Amino acid sequence: MHTIEQYRNVFISYMESKIATKEPVNLYEPITYILGLGGKRLRPLLVLMATDVFGSDHKKALDAALAIEVFHNFSLVHDDIMDDAPLRRGKETVHEKWDINTGILSGDAMLINAYQLFEDYEGAAFRDLIELFSKTAIEVCEGQQFDVDFETRDDVTLAEYLKMIEYKTAVLVATALKMGGIIANASVQDQNAIYEFGRNLGIAFQLQDDYLDAFGDPNTFGKQVGGDIIENKKTFLYLKALEIGIPLHKKELSDLYSIRPKDASDKIKTIKTIFVESGSAALTQKEIESYTKKAFTVLDQLKISDDKKDLLRHFGENLMRRKV
Amino acid sequence: MHTIEQYRNVFISYMESKIATKEPVNLYEPITYILGLGGKRLRPLLVLMATDVFGSDHKKALDAALAIEVFHNFSLVHDDIMDDAPLRRGKETVHEKWDINTGILSGDAMLINAYQLFEDYEGAAFRDLIELFSKTAIEVCEGQQFDVDFETRDDVTLAEYLKMIEYKTAVLVATALKMGGIIANASVQDQNAIYEFGRNLGIAFQLQDDYLDAFGDPNTFGKQVGGDIIENKKTFLYLKALEIGIPLHKKELSDLYSIRPKDASDKIKTIKTIFVESGSAALTQKEIESYTKKAFTVLDQLKISDDKKDLLRHFGENLMRRKV
Repeated sequence: MHTIEQYRNVFISYMESKIATKEPVNLYEPITYILGLGGKRLRPLLVLMATDVFGSDHKKALDAALAIEVFHNFSLVHDDIMDDAPLRRGKETVHEKWDINTGILSGDAMLINAYQLFEDYEGAAFRDLIELFSKTAIEVCEGQQFDVDFETRDDVTLAEYLKMIEYKTAVLVATALKMGGIIANASVQDQNAIYEFGRNLGIAFQLQDDYLDAFGDPNTFGKQVGGDIIENKKTFLYLKALEIGIPLHKKELSDLYSIRPKDASDKIKTIKTIFVESGSAALTQKEIESYTKKAFTVLDQLKISDDKKDLLRHFGENLMRRKV
Repeated sequence: MHTIEQYRNVFISYMESKIATKEPVNLYEPITYILGLGGKRLRPLLVLMATDVFGSDHKKALDAALAIEVFHNFSLVHDDIMDDAPLRRGKETVHEKWDINTGILSGDAMLINAYQLFEDYEGAAFRDLIELFSKTAIEVCEGQQFDVDFETRDDVTLAEYLKMIEYKTAVLVATALKMGGIIANASVQDQNAIYEFGRNLGIAFQLQDDYLDAFGDPNTFGKQVGGDIIENKKTFLYLKALEIGIPLHKKELSDLYSIRPKDASDKIKTIKTIFVESGSAALTQKEIESYTKKAFTVLDQLKISDDKKDLLRHFGENLMRRKV
């Protein structure tokens, strides 16, 4: 077993050895570019860690880890086009540096390249990896579509919101961990348990992201605090406040979420007060704790040694403390 | 064995039974729409025909045939965005009827759905189909990128052009046929031979498309005659004329391919004269015949009965006569 930092370094070295710009250059250069922009590489290092956790060698998991990272970056390239985003990790997005057509086509090639990275796996593992990957990839697309749909709907339920973040974010984390189980030939029970660990942790992480977007420390959050409020984004905090708030809160929320003032500081302040006074902020924290707890409970079911459970728990705790 | 029309009908019935719009509707409705627009369904019926030709049952090939058709339509949806095309088969393109974001995301889902359609195949066939599919899908992306690159390059060679049309068009025809071989458990030699048949026939067909775009009968060609000339498209006819034409022809070609007159009739007339007088038109016809002959020669190597060879030859002849 290794530290998070060691897994990350092993992965990055491998990725750099495998990703080369070939002909046609205009197709492959954007792929090298987006993969080189950095990021925490959380998903691929989960594939490596899970493979070790189930008693195999993380080196066997490098291609699957790279497939997950290539897929994740494919979704970023296409999502950035859809969101008209100029920046990704502080650098120009692919469609901004090149053009939209390049973003579409290079993204397509990345999705296919991700599938090809599973070709070195033998027998049942090959099929299991491909089928899991396709199922997850479709869910990520569906999650993205739900997210787009929610922008123009005013009847989004909390259940629908939770399904959206599960599909858009959590299932890929869960799949990264389960792929380690497949590669290490873990039992189906263990594969499903580690998937559930990742799924619950992923939902908890995304809910916390919503919470910190409003209540985080501007010095450590990494994104603009209040960004979701400025964008009128229907997060868990907003939907919960709409559900349980008093009529006055509901009216003020709806009114403020239909405008985009140039100076948003008053709007952000008022919305945050409503989130707190309605009880939504406290209930969101409770929901985060509940999903985190579910994740750690399912860890106990795994048929692995306690020090390995500790490693996964340690990772989960650090993730929720935003320290990985 | 069945007629082309019978294979087409079997395929369309199967496709209609399998393609349903589910949630999220905005993701899946465009998929149902584009697949319902029609088209000749040539690629899927080749999968069915090849499976029968190699002594198996075409019903086993329906999922692979659908995968090929879904992939082909995925590439149309994304290409239409890149080409800013308003119409496809006489109807609105997906990005025109919905929007670009919908075209991108529904296209992505189609590519993943195509992979999922191979999941019912067992053992080595599953792996062979997936690996062949990925290889071809990447080539189609590369072909599209070459095509885009050629628009702004003035040093495109004939060899590069042939590679572009091979990747963009011919390999998917070849792959459709080879998939039948895989499903019917044909020998590797036969699989490769039928792939070569399809590849050569596909190149011949595309070269003929270039030729007919200039010299076809407006009543039967189906597209606007002279369309490539209007668009200054560097086809085989153009590149060959540039290669072998006298200096005067070369200069006139270059000059006319740098303008877009409102009334293109004079330009089309002059260019066609150059294609003929330079010898390019005759040499293009020779090239078409050469690829067609290669396709039919490789047919003879197949270890199948003569009546089955006749069926494939008959299909190839009808394809080149634009009668399927």
